[in-house]
Amino acid sequence: MTPFDRDRCRALDDADPLAAFRDRFVLADGVIYLDGNSLGPPPVGMAEHLARVVTDQWGTDLVRAWNVHGWVDLPLRVGDRVAPLIGAEPGSVIVGDSTTVNLFKALGAALDLRPGRGTPVILTDTGNFPTDLYVMESVAARWGAQVRAVAPSEVESVLAGGDVACLALTHVDYRTGRRHDLAGLTALAHRVGAVTVWDLSHSTGVMPIDVDAADVDLAVGCGYKYLNGGPGAPAYLYVAPRLMEDFSNPIAGWFGHARPFDFSEIFEPAPGIARARVGTPHVLSMVAFDAALAVFDDVDVDQVRAKSVSLTSLFIDLVDGLDVELVTPRDPDLRGSQVSLRHRDGLAVVQALAARGVVGDFRAPDVMRFGFAPLYVRHVDVFDATQILADVLASGQWRDPRFSHRPPVT
Amino acid sequence: MTPFDRDRCRALDDADPLAAFRDRFVLADGVIYLDGNSLGPPPVGMAEHLARVVTDQWGTDLVRAWNVHGWVDLPLRVGDRVAPLIGAEPGSVIVGDSTTVNLFKALGAALDLRPGRGTPVILTDTGNFPTDLYVMESVAARWGAQVRAVAPSEVESVLAGGDVACLALTHVDYRTGRRHDLAGLTALAHRVGAVTVWDLSHSTGVMPIDVDAADVDLAVGCGYKYLNGGPGAPAYLYVAPRLMEDFSNPIAGWFGHARPFDFSEIFEPAPGIARARVGTPHVLSMVAFDAALAVFDDVDVDQVRAKSVSLTSLFIDLVDGLDVELVTPRDPDLRGSQVSLRHRDGLAVVQALAARGVVGDFRAPDVMRFGFAPLYVRHVDVFDATQILADVLASGQWRDPRFSHRPPVT
Repeated sequence: MTPFDRDRCRALDDADPLAAFRDRFVLADGVIYLDGNSLGPPPVGMAEHLARVVTDQWGTDLVRAWNVHGWVDLPLRVGDRVAPLIGAEPGSVIVGDSTTVNLFKALGAALDLRPGRGTPVILTDTGNFPTDLYVMESVAARWGAQVRAVAPSEVESVLAGGDVACLALTHVDYRTGRRHDLAGLTALAHRVGAVTVWDLSHSTGVMPIDVDAADVDLAVGCGYKYLNGGPGAPAYLYVAPRLMEDFSNPIAGWFGHARPFDFSEIFEPAPGIARARVGTPHVLSMVAFDAALAVFDDVDVDQVRAKSVSLTSLFIDLVDGLDVELVTPRDPDLRGSQVSLRHRDGLAVVQALAARGVVGDFRAPDVMRFGFAPLYVRHVDVFDATQILADVLASGQWRDPRFSHRPPVT
Repeated sequence: MTPFDRDRCRALDDADPLAAFRDRFVLADGVIYLDGNSLGPPPVGMAEHLARVVTDQWGTDLVRAWNVHGWVDLPLRVGDRVAPLIGAEPGSVIVGDSTTVNLFKALGAALDLRPGRGTPVILTDTGNFPTDLYVMESVAARWGAQVRAVAPSEVESVLAGGDVACLALTHVDYRTGRRHDLAGLTALAHRVGAVTVWDLSHSTGVMPIDVDAADVDLAVGCGYKYLNGGPGAPAYLYVAPRLMEDFSNPIAGWFGHARPFDFSEIFEPAPGIARARVGTPHVLSMVAFDAALAVFDDVDVDQVRAKSVSLTSLFIDLVDGLDVELVTPRDPDLRGSQVSLRHRDGLAVVQALAARGVVGDFRAPDVMRFGFAPLYVRHVDVFDATQILADVLASGQWRDPRFSHRPPVT
């Protein structure tokens, strides 16, 4: 049926330059984990690392740990670890808060960079992640702007229309896996005078991204997906160095002050990216993210992308002919590292798969998502997962009533 | 000289109903820790708890841990653990984000509750914590409001003047330890039609607070001081149940949605306090805070307050006659659980004290702060600390040049 058998997959894994990275993650036995696009697994040693931070830092040095262990600068240091993964210069990325709060800051700052346009328009697409859409409306309400959400395929033509103040898109669509042309749309945005705010949550860590070369203005992203920073890991915010001086943080907090420990009554923004900080950093979540990023110190992102294309293409080939509809583009240049399939009872199929050890997830109304994190997913995993999927579909196993009700989250 | 000797202090400790709580904290050897108002120490077992969460929850159940271990509702559950400490009903407190971000939400929502007043005035005092002042200006800029910061002693008369839309104060002053009359000022605020936003960061956990009885509208507070939730622990936000339906979160995010996992394009606020949520909770920091709050399940806050008054009064008595100026009110009804002393070279004195194992902190230009957390500070600690302070001052030890330069934070 297919050009791939399991031995050929194993041969690909044997030749995989990234193969050794799998041992750096805690992967539950008997599980093929295809949901790293939702929550990455813990890197090996994470439990011990956190325990050490509690015992040797917090417990031993108490309040002095802020200095002794550099907690105060964690948002900058961890930001500098994220920077190479998105092509950003050191000192242009801050880590802290949630993706949503960072989007609020970025969108507000973006509109402040484009004053005097009447009612400014924020252009986005209807496939954007819901929190991005919600927070855009929050910002629009306060900044007197208007959100225009169009189909992903229409973004380019509407943007070219010319009255857009801010283009706010997610690079890779969380539901479909479709990828926007980051460099092309950023260039077009600049031609029409718009500021760009990119959400890189679904692409960072699985493909080369170069915000600097693409001249991106502002970007945000999430720490707990392909970056494996832990559940609800702090998010990041990028500000292009050329805009730093004009970046006005809509939520001024003491850690964004030029001299927080002067305890001045008057706010004076820090000279660099620290101005994008707000409150006291969540140190325990932050040190976990920091430790997870250490894995990437040794990673060649071009190799990651090559393997990502190989895994997702293999999956697409192997599900061809099954009773599912491919949602994600076949052209690898148009997708990220996830493949989404449509099935009328996708929820039940995803749960039947999970019962057999294949973990993907479901997005209403009918989309099954499978994420392929090249640092720990192998070609044989893809092969086995598709065999199980084929069996679940052919056997009607998914019709079992216990798979029809779903828990609130996966 | 003083009516207290060390034996009498020991007798007080022997009779202390809270004495056993000291064993529930990791306290470094040889340290008298009087900085729990800045960062509380780890409860015993915290390192193991975090390691277990990583291994048994994140590592074992991966994305399913959101359901299996109830991560998704942590902000509500931990909020319900904070609630009794501030006199709030279950379901009226949410935990997440930083204190600053929660203040932004609370202040914005407060102004939305008072529409149509021309330029609304936010009244605060100049002694408020800087981040509170900064974020007030951020909110004022966006909501077309104006911040009026007056001396703490003038708050009442200015408020009575009548044109205030929002009274935003910190209950206990971070620098002086002076306490505002929460119930009295809230009642006055309501008489003039103002909404109240209280910052309870420096009082929660060391005295009875009853936001319900005082009819407080909105409140925020910090998790990492007397609540011992860990460095940069998530903060909390209280919304009075009577205002819940009208509370409009200025930062709409997916976890504030009525049904986050419907992934709807349209924001619909959750019916209860969940509407005050924004993004994905920082689970690792959140479970640490949750574990720290478990200590308070067994605490009688009236006993805590009684011991707090005893400790702070003892400290004040014992420093009488030393070459320092008492900043904090002598009347216990007018203070929290910290005592601040002024000394022209306070920075050097604090560092000389630290070198001898007494950890307080310093706030420019000349204030030394000493916090007395009744769950782990004893009367003998107060006695010993004042003896060492007396010796440092009398001997001129603080003049040692190594104490003249200070690290960026304590």
